[in-house]
Amino acid sequence: MKKRILIPEVSPAILGFATVGGKREKEGPLGEAFDLIDTSDRFCKKTWEKAEAEMQRLSLCKALEKTGKKATELDAVFAGDLINQCAASIFGLVSFPAPFFGIFGACSTLTEGMILASLALQSPGFSLAAVVTSSHNCTAERQFRSPIEYGGQRSPTSQWTVTGAGAYLLSARPEAGAFARITALLPGIALDSGVTDSSNMGAAMAPAAADTFLAYFEENGERPEDFDRIVTGDLGEEGSSLFLEFLEQNGVRNVKNHEDCGALIYDRTRADVHSGGSGCGCAGTTLANRYLPLLQNGKMRRILFAATGALMNAASVQQGLSIPGIAHLVRLESPAAGKEEVWS
Amino acid sequence: MKKRILIPEVSPAILGFATVGGKREKEGPLGEAFDLIDTSDRFCKKTWEKAEAEMQRLSLCKALEKTGKKATELDAVFAGDLINQCAASIFGLVSFPAPFFGIFGACSTLTEGMILASLALQSPGFSLAAVVTSSHNCTAERQFRSPIEYGGQRSPTSQWTVTGAGAYLLSARPEAGAFARITALLPGIALDSGVTDSSNMGAAMAPAAADTFLAYFEENGERPEDFDRIVTGDLGEEGSSLFLEFLEQNGVRNVKNHEDCGALIYDRTRADVHSGGSGCGCAGTTLANRYLPLLQNGKMRRILFAATGALMNAASVQQGLSIPGIAHLVRLESPAAGKEEVWS
Repeated sequence: MKKRILIPEVSPAILGFATVGGKREKEGPLGEAFDLIDTSDRFCKKTWEKAEAEMQRLSLCKALEKTGKKATELDAVFAGDLINQCAASIFGLVSFPAPFFGIFGACSTLTEGMILASLALQSPGFSLAAVVTSSHNCTAERQFRSPIEYGGQRSPTSQWTVTGAGAYLLSARPEAGAFARITALLPGIALDSGVTDSSNMGAAMAPAAADTFLAYFEENGERPEDFDRIVTGDLGEEGSSLFLEFLEQNGVRNVKNHEDCGALIYDRTRADVHSGGSGCGCAGTTLANRYLPLLQNGKMRRILFAATGALMNAASVQQGLSIPGIAHLVRLESPAAGKEEVWS
Repeated sequence: MKKRILIPEVSPAILGFATVGGKREKEGPLGEAFDLIDTSDRFCKKTWEKAEAEMQRLSLCKALEKTGKKATELDAVFAGDLINQCAASIFGLVSFPAPFFGIFGACSTLTEGMILASLALQSPGFSLAAVVTSSHNCTAERQFRSPIEYGGQRSPTSQWTVTGAGAYLLSARPEAGAFARITALLPGIALDSGVTDSSNMGAAMAPAAADTFLAYFEENGERPEDFDRIVTGDLGEEGSSLFLEFLEQNGVRNVKNHEDCGALIYDRTRADVHSGGSGCGCAGTTLANRYLPLLQNGKMRRILFAATGALMNAASVQQGLSIPGIAHLVRLESPAAGKEEVWS
């Protein structure tokens, strides 16, 4: 069996990040952590699509500002979103004079980008890369389902697309103040488990998430309890329970430290989000808003983080195709945890 | 100024490829070179979208078969297309048990994938990667313009989306029978030159193509005449003349060896394709159908090849946004040309 874990020779450092969100995200438990919030969700733009692009622009601009880097220092930008032809990334980031790689992994885009950036940073020509991802509730609703004005009834297993963008700066060199380093990569395999209910993305993604984590545990001999947290992107309540069930069926039992960004991002006593949050902006903001500060200050030392994606479009559902899932995993370690090691 | 050319330490070898096409592609001057043709353009599928996905599946399956490789040997697949959410790649390739990276660079997807695969192949954990890309005239027409049944009048500068898919296998090791090796990479920067006419993609892409080639020539000190050909993806007639004009304005004059896949793929005395071919399948099939055999047999020794993309979606045009372009470049050299060198 082919090895699936890649240990990068150079462990990229996450130097900094910025997150942008909307009203409902502000009201969630991580609301205080966003760098920029517009409670109108509009960011002074005339269309939702332009608003989402603006969120990408603001997030990268702010991440550069916070880390004292310039756009001209970027060797590459890896960016993606849920809009057709990755348009939020393109129009949001076209003003940055850096090589641009459009990527698409649905809601797994954050860690797809981190894996690709980490691989690129192994080459001597690369020293600084950005990963940017976003989603917007109103662009996603009208593209995949109905315009929000329609007020369609939502299924109990459905999730609420996060209005949010996250930008991350990754460096090949350890630098003072880094939040975490990426010490292992496990790119996901797309898995079609036959789920056709587009209102139950959690069920579509859970098998792929389990496949990715099980591949990690099996190959590395580690267990969930060797980590502070094992984190999934946006399985939501429904998908998370299926994910744990799949782990259990495969011998990984009694997992106590699993968290899901989709289950964390909203205050569900205030917001009717059904099974939880979703969208590229879900993992895309929660990694920064919750986990990276904990890794930086040493309150957490090691986490496994896999953003999860449901691979479909509006036409594929209409044409009766099922929804494959995918989950790309990175192992994140506290910079503090590596002080005794050679961190090249 | 930051360096834009990356010289990979390991020069990936293009071990093999396969191309799939439709009726009009068969009738073109490269028609005989396709591995698989269905003159109905349908590939025995009930929708155009499913037909395009099937073309991706067939191309990768055939490329593996021709090179004697197994899908389980693939360390990664990099794939993209023009369909919303890269659906042709997802549904075409979900049956291959390999790590999957969805990418989007519009018609520049082929070389975006080759650059990312080349970077990944620098890591010890990677030895074999696939790059797959496709477009289908009927999926593109109904998604970006009108269903073909509508019979809309086409503008003289418009291009004809190629019905085609190409799959390429890249190896970190030189192997007998390789077609070419990738000896330099230059990832493109997205450039918005203010073109808003979605019937003139050539004009939208030409500035980005010129930017990429000019960056190469300026940084490396080489000139077009140092290559057998300098090749663009799908600028078409209109975009090609603008491209040469931009080169000229920047001191690269009298270029005699430029070719454009979009201008080559159709027999324009038989097919009314206006400015030429376009779509991910244009460069995606022409690199394999025309250039790689010439590099393998030593009739060409060095080419610069940049697939070109117009970054937009149907909504962005409706919302009045202009169309940024991008061009990702690879330098391809004949395996023969490297025999005297250390090819690690």
